[in-house]
Amino acid sequence: MRTIGVLTSGGDAPGMNAAIRAVVRTGLNKGLKVMGIQRGYNGIINGEIFEMDSSSVSDIIHRGGTILRTARSEEFRTEEGRKKAYNVLKVFGIEGLVVIGGDGSFTGAMKLANEFGVKVVGIPGTIDNDLAYTDYTIGFDTAVNTVLDAINKLRDTSTSHERVSVVEVMGRHCGDIALYAGLAGGAESIIIPEQPFDFDELCRNIIQSKARGKMHNLIVLAEGVGGAEELARRIEEITGIEARATKLGHIQRGGSPTAFDRILASKMGARAVELLLEGKSKRAVGIKDGKIIDVDIEEALSMKKESDSYMYELSKIISM
Amino acid sequence: MRTIGVLTSGGDAPGMNAAIRAVVRTGLNKGLKVMGIQRGYNGIINGEIFEMDSSSVSDIIHRGGTILRTARSEEFRTEEGRKKAYNVLKVFGIEGLVVIGGDGSFTGAMKLANEFGVKVVGIPGTIDNDLAYTDYTIGFDTAVNTVLDAINKLRDTSTSHERVSVVEVMGRHCGDIALYAGLAGGAESIIIPEQPFDFDELCRNIIQSKARGKMHNLIVLAEGVGGAEELARRIEEITGIEARATKLGHIQRGGSPTAFDRILASKMGARAVELLLEGKSKRAVGIKDGKIIDVDIEEALSMKKESDSYMYELSKIISM
Amino acid sequence: MRTIGVLTSGGDAPGMNAAIRAVVRTGLNKGLKVMGIQRGYNGIINGEIFEMDSSSVSDIIHRGGTILRTARSEEFRTEEGRKKAYNVLKVFGIEGLVVIGGDGSFTGAMKLANEFGVKVVGIPGTIDNDLAYTDYTIGFDTAVNTVLDAINKLRDTSTSHERVSVVEVMGRHCGDIALYAGLAGGAESIIIPEQPFDFDELCRNIIQSKARGKMHNLIVLAEGVGGAEELARRIEEITGIEARATKLGHIQRGGSPTAFDRILASKMGARAVELLLEGKSKRAVGIKDGKIIDVDIEEALSMKKESDSYMYELSKIISM
Amino acid sequence: MRTIGVLTSGGDAPGMNAAIRAVVRTGLNKGLKVMGIQRGYNGIINGEIFEMDSSSVSDIIHRGGTILRTARSEEFRTEEGRKKAYNVLKVFGIEGLVVIGGDGSFTGAMKLANEFGVKVVGIPGTIDNDLAYTDYTIGFDTAVNTVLDAINKLRDTSTSHERVSVVEVMGRHCGDIALYAGLAGGAESIIIPEQPFDFDELCRNIIQSKARGKMHNLIVLAEGVGGAEELARRIEEITGIEARATKLGHIQRGGSPTAFDRILASKMGARAVELLLEGKSKRAVGIKDGKIIDVDIEEALSMKKESDSYMYELSKIISM
Repeated sequence: MRTIGVLTSGGDAPGMNAAIRAVVRTGLNKGLKVMGIQRGYNGIINGEIFEMDSSSVSDIIHRGGTILRTARSEEFRTEEGRKKAYNVLKVFGIEGLVVIGGDGSFTGAMKLANEFGVKVVGIPGTIDNDLAYTDYTIGFDTAVNTVLDAINKLRDTSTSHERVSVVEVMGRHCGDIALYAGLAGGAESIIIPEQPFDFDELCRNIIQSKARGKMHNLIVLAEGVGGAEELARRIEEITGIEARATKLGHIQRGGSPTAFDRILASKMGARAVELLLEGKSKRAVGIKDGKIIDVDIEEALSMKKESDSYMYELSKIISM
Repeated sequence: MRTIGVLTSGGDAPGMNAAIRAVVRTGLNKGLKVMGIQRGYNGIINGEIFEMDSSSVSDIIHRGGTILRTARSEEFRTEEGRKKAYNVLKVFGIEGLVVIGGDGSFTGAMKLANEFGVKVVGIPGTIDNDLAYTDYTIGFDTAVNTVLDAINKLRDTSTSHERVSVVEVMGRHCGDIALYAGLAGGAESIIIPEQPFDFDELCRNIIQSKARGKMHNLIVLAEGVGGAEELARRIEEITGIEARATKLGHIQRGGSPTAFDRILASKMGARAVELLLEGKSKRAVGIKDGKIIDVDIEEALSMKKESDSYMYELSKIISM
Repeated sequence: MRTIGVLTSGGDAPGMNAAIRAVVRTGLNKGLKVMGIQRGYNGIINGEIFEMDSSSVSDIIHRGGTILRTARSEEFRTEEGRKKAYNVLKVFGIEGLVVIGGDGSFTGAMKLANEFGVKVVGIPGTIDNDLAYTDYTIGFDTAVNTVLDAINKLRDTSTSHERVSVVEVMGRHCGDIALYAGLAGGAESIIIPEQPFDFDELCRNIIQSKARGKMHNLIVLAEGVGGAEELARRIEEITGIEARATKLGHIQRGGSPTAFDRILASKMGARAVELLLEGKSKRAVGIKDGKIIDVDIEEALSMKKESDSYMYELSKIISM
Repeated sequence: MRTIGVLTSGGDAPGMNAAIRAVVRTGLNKGLKVMGIQRGYNGIINGEIFEMDSSSVSDIIHRGGTILRTARSEEFRTEEGRKKAYNVLKVFGIEGLVVIGGDGSFTGAMKLANEFGVKVVGIPGTIDNDLAYTDYTIGFDTAVNTVLDAINKLRDTSTSHERVSVVEVMGRHCGDIALYAGLAGGAESIIIPEQPFDFDELCRNIIQSKARGKMHNLIVLAEGVGGAEELARRIEEITGIEARATKLGHIQRGGSPTAFDRILASKMGARAVELLLEGKSKRAVGIKDGKIIDVDIEEALSMKKESDSYMYELSKIISM
């Protein structure tokens, strides 16, 4: 293998730049030529490809977002689009491809490999932590800390007004952002898709905690479960205690990555290049039990993520 | 004057604690007895009043919110409620009252003074900067920096996706948070109640800036003008460029106050006590041209806030 | 077991409060009486012991430092001191003791157990990450992120001046803070006690990187290796390139804990109480391969920490 | 005037990039050609000059440091050096020069104007706030908030250990950083060059405040007064209370600028260009009583900065 390409695809996540940097510099260190591909799979199709040297990834490890841009590609979902992409990769001499993104991006990589024999390695870059084969995805730790910072601010104002505060965070199918930020933020209640939700119990807890003198009550809600506005309205109606909703939105995707995400991304980026050099393909890099691992990308996509029910139970006990 | 009271009322603002601290310690330093009143005017009516010593305001200067809690009081809006409040103040021997809050809180103070001769001084504590007699209110600088931090995060993700990003910030009648944060955040457009808004011009700018190669387009919108969701939808419809909305919400009210807000609050708190000691009443403390001032509270309430149109024009020039 | 005590000892670390909170609330949840002991082992000897209820640990999960205070105790190092401590524990009915701290604190706990049969469990609270039996100690992740934030600031000014910047971080025997923050911060060189240091190679790298157009050169140095001032002076002398030193000092011990540290502390605190309830003693709680574990405290103290040489090598490759 | 140049010189300060951006975009908006000069006055002499367009200042308003780099120039201090600089400016057609920096940079600008008739305008960019003609310099507000953040962290650990904490901040002749950060940080004592310092009084305060139950004692010291290490040692010797020193160093120069600094820099940058267009020269832009002003640059340099003794007295009263 002499030339590899790297792209970011799908929703961006803090730490993607650290991963790109590691891919580029490890590749160069091993004697490879490294091509940066802009705007995800669209960038292959459109030939938005340029050679990267060491300085092209200088001063990016601490920046959020992705210098390669990202996009979702309709064209690439068609076989025709992928055929075109394959031809462009061949023209540019790209033999191995590192794809940084979530499950949709991995599916695209898998198809490139299955249909055209392109050697691909996936790196999990998504704030949602919704890939089952890896304990953590790049960007998750940063997103959780961003939510924590918002919770700290909400705590100030909720305490002053002695209100219930409902915070809606990202996570359509996977409640990990809500679970981790809720536990770390001392939230009184955490509502996630993976756990049953009992509205009456929630209201009982709010009323009791007010009675015990708690100055505020914080509820963290994963977006997959429903709207914060509606929940706050219902809580106020039933409990008679003022409730306010905040939907954190896209700020969760941005910001300078935490140390954890930068280190994870650096290790994963380096490992992805090594895998290509070892002649491997269709691998997804992950972290399991503190160790960098790699699994078959199809297997990775088929695994079902399980929520950490211990953390959920723990949060009930220690946020009482 | 031997005994004064202090309360916070209306929406909370970062720096209120620094103001409380300054009131208490200046009062004690001048030989006064200082009573803390909880939950705004309700706290007077309900007798939630306790003596404060120096240590009761230890380690609060850096905390958001207000240790005295805050509330809006329906009862105090009635003459009967205020009569009750006056009686409670008398019973506790409170001869002077420092009220930290916004225009609603000032109106309450004014009525106590007019109807019962209570000596009152107002300190402007509100993130909105919507009081005309003062250049800055306590909490405004912190709120602007909180919005800036959010804008930084949104810039990361908007740039990665090359999207338009619409951010809705607080400010019902006064667009200052949007104006200051927009100028400081390098927003391409700022939409505030005080300035005419031309949707077609906005779309032209977005299209042109995309054509010139700008990777993202940031629009800061004061809540008084309308909803961010709706605006983003219309922009996407007309320009064909992806647009996303974020409503920052209550996080703007929280957080550790900036140096500016803590210093402003400290000076204003000390000045409020001095005014009471000088026998003044019905004064609102402010800052004008860098100097701590005080004006008649009725006059303060009647003044019409003017927006800084120079800053608005400047932002158009330097965000091009 | 009906009554347990909890104390923090040695240098403080962000997340200690989250651990205390988890110990108290898990204890209460299991029907135990939980006593807080102030100022470490001194607090036992002096009887600075008070019963904790659920609200005594409200609103502390996000605060740095330790609400129980901490101290190093000379008296407790003597057998007489420990005898006194044991008597006090008996008088207060404390049958199990949770000690949050570093190796010195664990040694004290071990002696209490060995000499008097007190049931003890240790929780690793120290920013240095210098305990071999656990992958992470509480406070380490926060300290690394604090250093990262400082590195970001130094990068700005070093780049503007095109200087070499030497940052000295904590870590007397263990270079983990330097290693993790160096890798995450994109430091050009990391100097830690566990790795050989070649001054000439360092100077060659600095000169070469300047020649390749790098605008700044960042060196992270663990305090155990030597002084930053002296190193900066020698670099400037040999390379002729301006070099500046910064010793970060005690700010590394403070700050609101990260999500990682709060969650780790919550899990460890809960586990410590469970161990006491299971009748275990002389255990040190840790995290290994992502799982909460516990090991014999003497064994924990005798293990030799090994540095992650992969991360060290990786940093050389990707910071080139 | 058709072509202007802009440079940054001396120590860098957060907000310099916002000033450069405003100079460039205001210049372009008025039909001027704007040349960026790298590495201060050295850059003129060496011809490190390039034309700037609007996109060359994109995405810099939030970045610390200066994209134009900065340096101190020995050569420019000689008449020969300045003659050379003048010739280069002529060759590049640069008729007006905007200099962003401190008093040394202003002196250089003044000489260029006096000796060769170059039209110059100075913008005060220095964290020290040591220029008497302006209430604030660019970077000062950011530096004060950076110090505040450090003080918050030190408060955590000092409180846990019940120690005295001495923090040394920047400010050789001007104690403003110490004064503002000390007042805003709730420091028990502030030691600055402009105020007499009584060591015995300091020790009395420390002992008394310990006796009154204060958990920590924070002393902020301007570097111009002396070393923190030495002071901490003496305090510990005399009071018997543990004392620790922290010298914050170069992190005070870095970091993303605050809203205040970005807005100040934007206004000053725009005003500097307007002054050149009005045919003015030898002006220093400043802010006085909340308004952007300009004064003769020689006059600016000759004015003696006065410290705000009211803030100093206020801090004594409210930090008791």
